[in-house]
Amino acid sequence: MKKVIATLVLTSFAGTVVAQQGLKPEEMIKFRKAGYSFMAWNMGKIKANLEGTYNKEQVIAAANVVAATANSGMGALFATGTEKDVGGQATRVKPEFFKEQDKVRELAMAYIKEANELQKVAATGDAAAVKVQFGKTGESCKACHDKYRKD
Amino acid sequence: MKKVIATLVLTSFAGTVVAQQGLKPEEMIKFRKAGYSFMAWNMGKIKANLEGTYNKEQVIAAANVVAATANSGMGALFATGTEKDVGGQATRVKPEFFKEQDKVRELAMAYIKEANELQKVAATGDAAAVKVQFGKTGESCKACHDKYRKD
Repeated sequence: MKKVIATLVLTSFAGTVVAQQGLKPEEMIKFRKAGYSFMAWNMGKIKANLEGTYNKEQVIAAANVVAATANSGMGALFATGTEKDVGGQATRVKPEFFKEQDKVRELAMAYIKEANELQKVAATGDAAAVKVQFGKTGESCKACHDKYRKD
Repeated sequence: MKKVIATLVLTSFAGTVVAQQGLKPEEMIKFRKAGYSFMAWNMGKIKANLEGTYNKEQVIAAANVVAATANSGMGALFATGTEKDVGGQATRVKPEFFKEQDKVRELAMAYIKEANELQKVAATGDAAAVKVQFGKTGESCKACHDKYRKD
């Protein structure tokens, strides 16, 4: 029951409850790390476009990944049992993350909002506006990392 | 020069040339594995919806990840130097993948087409149509796995 409640609360980030896939804790950790890692590649591409030659289509494609990832209901991958290294999967999430759900939800909602805005701004092709929104999106990532990610 | 050509050819999957991020081969392998892994979670969610209670919003969110991933220009992550395990990153891509670029492009384009169609069909909320298109998308993944992925 505790697990179900944690899952429901955390998945409310994205407004959906993830169907039961019967994932093991180590699979959840693997998938969430994969999501953040792939998103990091896409954030890096946007950064490279802003610092070099701006390719509108590439920035749109990257921003679509960032937004889709933000809206994918990743909260479900932080269920009970994933607070610590398990089954060969290491996690850098601090234990407080699992105890401060109001704060976590606030940070998650802020990140989803900025990622959605980044997707919208990218579609316009306005590099200056993308630069501003890219900064805000990065800040929303960092807010959670600073508070809940071990270095 | 060889690396640049390989990158250009492979990135033509997605119609974009990825900005130079100066990634190491092991970083490319890490990112491509992350992309496929996170996509697998999202394909798994669609499957769970089709086999259990269908949640339209969750399927849309998952299909958005699949399509965004397909269109993200992952071909750039298969540059020269990533044909084999490097820097602690193992790869299951067969060597032939790097030599048969016409076939690889054909499979990649088919996968992008099916993923984009899945995104469109998911938006309609028609579970029966999603089931058909989910099958086609899975087949397009499998076509490449069967030919170019080591088990």
